[in-house]
Amino acid sequence: MTTSLEQSTPAVLDDPEVAVLAVARRAREASRALATATRATKDAALRALADALVAATDRVLAANAQDLERGRANGMSPGLLDRLALTPERVAAIADALRELAALPDPVGEVVRGSTLPNGLRLRQVRVPMGVVGMIYEARPNVTVDAAGLALKSGNAVVLRGGSAAASSNEVVVEVLADALVAQGLPGDLVQSVDAWGRPGAVALMHARGLVDVLVPRGGADLIATVVREATVPVIETGVGNCHLYVDASADQADALAILLNSKTQRVGVCNALETLLVHRDAADAFLPSALAALGAAGVTVHGDDVTLRHAPRDAATVPATDVDWATEYLSLDLAVRVVDGLDAAIEHVRRWSTGHTEAIVTQDLRAAERFVAEVDAAAVIVNASTRFTDGGQFGLGAEIGISTQKLHARGPMGLAELTTTKWVVHGDGHVRP
Amino acid sequence: MTTSLEQSTPAVLDDPEVAVLAVARRAREASRALATATRATKDAALRALADALVAATDRVLAANAQDLERGRANGMSPGLLDRLALTPERVAAIADALRELAALPDPVGEVVRGSTLPNGLRLRQVRVPMGVVGMIYEARPNVTVDAAGLALKSGNAVVLRGGSAAASSNEVVVEVLADALVAQGLPGDLVQSVDAWGRPGAVALMHARGLVDVLVPRGGADLIATVVREATVPVIETGVGNCHLYVDASADQADALAILLNSKTQRVGVCNALETLLVHRDAADAFLPSALAALGAAGVTVHGDDVTLRHAPRDAATVPATDVDWATEYLSLDLAVRVVDGLDAAIEHVRRWSTGHTEAIVTQDLRAAERFVAEVDAAAVIVNASTRFTDGGQFGLGAEIGISTQKLHARGPMGLAELTTTKWVVHGDGHVRP
Repeated sequence: MTTSLEQSTPAVLDDPEVAVLAVARRAREASRALATATRATKDAALRALADALVAATDRVLAANAQDLERGRANGMSPGLLDRLALTPERVAAIADALRELAALPDPVGEVVRGSTLPNGLRLRQVRVPMGVVGMIYEARPNVTVDAAGLALKSGNAVVLRGGSAAASSNEVVVEVLADALVAQGLPGDLVQSVDAWGRPGAVALMHARGLVDVLVPRGGADLIATVVREATVPVIETGVGNCHLYVDASADQADALAILLNSKTQRVGVCNALETLLVHRDAADAFLPSALAALGAAGVTVHGDDVTLRHAPRDAATVPATDVDWATEYLSLDLAVRVVDGLDAAIEHVRRWSTGHTEAIVTQDLRAAERFVAEVDAAAVIVNASTRFTDGGQFGLGAEIGISTQKLHARGPMGLAELTTTKWVVHGDGHVRP
Repeated sequence: MTTSLEQSTPAVLDDPEVAVLAVARRAREASRALATATRATKDAALRALADALVAATDRVLAANAQDLERGRANGMSPGLLDRLALTPERVAAIADALRELAALPDPVGEVVRGSTLPNGLRLRQVRVPMGVVGMIYEARPNVTVDAAGLALKSGNAVVLRGGSAAASSNEVVVEVLADALVAQGLPGDLVQSVDAWGRPGAVALMHARGLVDVLVPRGGADLIATVVREATVPVIETGVGNCHLYVDASADQADALAILLNSKTQRVGVCNALETLLVHRDAADAFLPSALAALGAAGVTVHGDDVTLRHAPRDAATVPATDVDWATEYLSLDLAVRVVDGLDAAIEHVRRWSTGHTEAIVTQDLRAAERFVAEVDAAAVIVNASTRFTDGGQFGLGAEIGISTQKLHARGPMGLAELTTTKWVVHGDGHVRP
């Protein structure tokens, strides 16, 4: 079995840093072939990758079975095993996501700004690929394909570092993708993995400034914190979401209840799910009993302050809230609930505990809505709708790389455009500066 | 002398990290007052700062005299002493720059994108201040005022770390600005310095992630490299410019000569000045003799390859070029010159040695121009004009924070908009996600 992966990682296994820098350098070289490729070329490649992946289903599943076996032997939790597991249906779904990418517009070449200057210089700012995108993620083989597809569509090479738990699956997937690229006349080095060099390889990737243009960590808070601390390559931080919903005194009660339940329970393990409910004291009597009953019926455990707990039905699952609850992104059927004195107290609570992801208000008071929008500092501020709408697909941005909670480069849902940069192109006729 | 600076840095001088985090926290708190301020409020403040600075000219010059005396005692070079020195005229010019900022449009509040989604949600992406901007720079007191003005105009608080060489000047300038802000009813903590905590204070500033939103280093390559390596706060790297000019075989010779001289000699110590000339071999005989003579007449020392040196006039100041020359940003009356086989070789040279700032071509061949524009990866690619045009003022962007050579967030000249981020604002009518 001589594959593009093995061909491209020959004798340097002993020094992870040298090896990973060589990988990044080859990625950089390969990225040049793609930077000026037409959309037609890229879309054809994406479809070919999808076909190749489906055709290799048996090989991929065999490798995945090894990962699962190792995971079970290491006592991996059923939840993680499920995220790691591939089936023919899941492979087909992953391939379909590549075909959907092919159907999206190409961000590259878009003219962002342009003008003719008073001196006659013609100026335009054009969207171009970053070059090499690094992706560090955990035990989900679908992210391998997803990341490769997003990078290719936006004209970039990608260097992947998946979790060791999915190492066998990822190795085969990267081989299949790289071989399919070569079959399309594109460099196989456009999709490479540094998993072979373990944790030192990941660190080398974080330090490959100048060769890797941006690093996107996808995973838990620990992974993201490590990358932010270690990396000299610019990082786009994706999202911890400690999201709040504030129910104002003037809120429409039916709207508030529907938005509360949807925000908390429509899907619990995601970053735009609700984690804390704040209720105006004047709305507490009318709203809390029915809200707490409905949350209980939906299986939600309420971590409430004193006032909240006084409104809870006798049979409700409740625990007293502490500061830990205000700070926690549960990602489970748990909700912190607090009664506040009003809009100022709600904004103050959000400022103290928000992770800057999504903050929502339910109100019929225009001034309250406008103050909340102006004074709350978050990637998304939502009036009278569910927190679950903060999402690239919901916002109509097409494929989503993640949801950025940092302020540089990208904030909120990131689409393909966020994997590009710009270039100023200036045309003159012998212009010199006076 | 009780000043806002002293009031705000009381008893914690013994632990730089604690002290600097307290500074950053106060900056964050102060930034909230400015985030929702109107343009009228900010512009009035900028004009008041300008007036206060001019009124304090004597105090500022007295402090500056101390810096100059210390500099001379430490053997500072005449060039650096000149950059450090303030005069009544220079103080007036610095104040005028603040008044010019007041005349610029406010980037905050601009709606970048907006639409009504199929489900009726109203979506808009609005420009908002970052919050707290950190600035680390060297011995130029004018940058202190400049940075404060840019931050205020874009709605941000600023935390400054100037060089120790300008410590006395900066201390007084920050006092004057902070006091003037207080007189305008704004928090003095909007402009603070961490110079009092020396290098450990600078490191603490680089690590103040979560309190400081972006760090902009301005200065030499060493300073920038240190900040990039140390910082966990997101950094915008500003520019080393190893800029190239390629004279194609088809170039208009008069245009090429004018662009060459302007790019190299119009101002030498700046990042958009030319550092390497590449000449197509078929243009060498016709172009090089006159070009080298003109460069010599302008006082430029040519570091040439063999072919170039064969074309040099006998009395010309020339030295043989090595790889060190291709890599060097001279910032002086020196120029590396190389004869290349054609467009491919020129692009290859640029790829190898470019710092991604500004790359220019002189050509009458449309295909050559289009390939150069498409294949050269730089913040600015220029056809038939001087490299000196890569500049915020020249591009019509108004005030310039610096020229970014990184690809994330900002690339090329950075205006006020680059000190802002965006916020998604979503309005619904009880919308929940199906």
